[in-house]
Amino acid sequence: MDLQYALELIGTYFFAISGALAVQDREHDLFGAGFTGFITAIGGGSLRDILLGAYPLVWIGNVNFLYAIFAGLITTFLFSSVVGRLRKTFFLFDTLGIAFFTILGVEKSLLLGFRPEVAAIMGMFSAVMGGVIRDTLTNVMPILFRKEVYASACLAGAVLYLGLDYFGLGRNINLLSSIALIILIRLIAVRFKLSLPTLK
Amino acid sequence: MDLQYALELIGTYFFAISGALAVQDREHDLFGAGFTGFITAIGGGSLRDILLGAYPLVWIGNVNFLYAIFAGLITTFLFSSVVGRLRKTFFLFDTLGIAFFTILGVEKSLLLGFRPEVAAIMGMFSAVMGGVIRDTLTNVMPILFRKEVYASACLAGAVLYLGLDYFGLGRNINLLSSIALIILIRLIAVRFKLSLPTLK
Amino acid sequence: MDLQYALELIGTYFFAISGALAVQDREHDLFGAGFTGFITAIGGGSLRDILLGAYPLVWIGNVNFLYAIFAGLITTFLFSSVVGRLRKTFFLFDTLGIAFFTILGVEKSLLLGFRPEVAAIMGMFSAVMGGVIRDTLTNVMPILFRKEVYASACLAGAVLYLGLDYFGLGRNINLLSSIALIILIRLIAVRFKLSLPTLK
Repeated sequence: MDLQYALELIGTYFFAISGALAVQDREHDLFGAGFTGFITAIGGGSLRDILLGAYPLVWIGNVNFLYAIFAGLITTFLFSSVVGRLRKTFFLFDTLGIAFFTILGVEKSLLLGFRPEVAAIMGMFSAVMGGVIRDTLTNVMPILFRKEVYASACLAGAVLYLGLDYFGLGRNINLLSSIALIILIRLIAVRFKLSLPTLK
Repeated sequence: MDLQYALELIGTYFFAISGALAVQDREHDLFGAGFTGFITAIGGGSLRDILLGAYPLVWIGNVNFLYAIFAGLITTFLFSSVVGRLRKTFFLFDTLGIAFFTILGVEKSLLLGFRPEVAAIMGMFSAVMGGVIRDTLTNVMPILFRKEVYASACLAGAVLYLGLDYFGLGRNINLLSSIALIILIRLIAVRFKLSLPTLK
Repeated sequence: MDLQYALELIGTYFFAISGALAVQDREHDLFGAGFTGFITAIGGGSLRDILLGAYPLVWIGNVNFLYAIFAGLITTFLFSSVVGRLRKTFFLFDTLGIAFFTILGVEKSLLLGFRPEVAAIMGMFSAVMGGVIRDTLTNVMPILFRKEVYASACLAGAVLYLGLDYFGLGRNINLLSSIALIILIRLIAVRFKLSLPTLK
């Protein structure tokens, strides 16, 4: 099992936890929390693959992703009081998660032969659309519109990856640089409460 | 015309009625009610087939499903005052509908060669996602999160079907047992106002 | 570059502008406005193509559509104060846009060999579902349910096109007649504040 596959499974595990925790404060039962965790974990990648026509979807072709989600939900249910207090830890995991999924989405799109412009959008979608679908289903203003530098950090990382790739930088350094950029933008924005300007 | 096909058309007819009736109390005109009925009737099966990449979608490959929906909408428009009072009758039809569509979704997924874990999810999606999409479009908390034993009853029936299928039970008995389980769970839960626990 | 292709690009440009302007009054930053404009521009056509299984999606197979959207967003950001005042102009462009996209969706579906009943629905979806997805994401009652003769005007135009096509009318006259019908219904409904009846 190579590193990328392992990281993808771990990312899916954490996305499921963050999705299930998202409805903790509201009137959802255990099943609703599990359903929300599931949608959060598979939403972004599924939308990307449906838009690209890349069948089978990752979690349908490989049920290990379903087991990773299941493990995440069990973790949440057993340790919800502990897990709920680890908000800072989860902010870190979520940030790592969106950074990693962005570049994974970019690479998959390029590998399938799509144009860089399309790959950039698919990278961002992979990372953030699970959360957007989750928020839409639970009638919350999508995360995308609340945390301004959430999706735009992913887009910036995707563009950096494509730029460095164009200039022939090796994959490993490129991967690290782009992921680092996403994390850096996100951390700085949250730390200093930065946000993008609005339309007048 | 075999029995399964006839039942599927009848189920589609009733889903269209229940979808159109769902917006009766709010500020929707006839077209909005028809659109909502349409989405409710095709939503779950369409999502299942898009996720599986099973083209053409049922109602696109066979327009009889469109006519079943159209008949449901006409019924609602002509007899809305009568139909609206038959809430208990519709609760029964809706319960029969989700039970039948769950097992239909499971069987279709297995037939296409997908894993049982995937088939269970697809069975549940076939039954409940039409209602979830309808509720999301009309800004209502999705049915899934309100009626706790709604989707989970479907999932339980799907798991039973897969278990009995694994142990080699004949299709007809299995079909009846699984559908009966879904209906039973739903009736007991509604009768005794049972619900699943929530996350603390 | 033929006329239809040029009109499609121009329509995409205007849909992006109207989508980005739709969130002007609310708490969305520039990125959120851009994202909303993007979804509005690609939503309807993408949903149509996913339902039909017509891959690659238009904007994924031809990145010029992405550049048309990008130009629309830049226009909105640079001239938002001017553009915001041109509401009447945009009402006209939006009306032209939905009329044109409806017939384009009908023709594409017929060309791919689908039944007229399916083509009528796909025509309407192409025109209005981008706006519906936008409104759902931003927690607004979808345009479809607010402006009664919005989607139904598209459906009427699609049905006229299919009827005239069935009776062998030439494509150009048919195209003009159907587009004219959609525009006419919409203008008359807005001018005289007409709306469809509601369910009792």
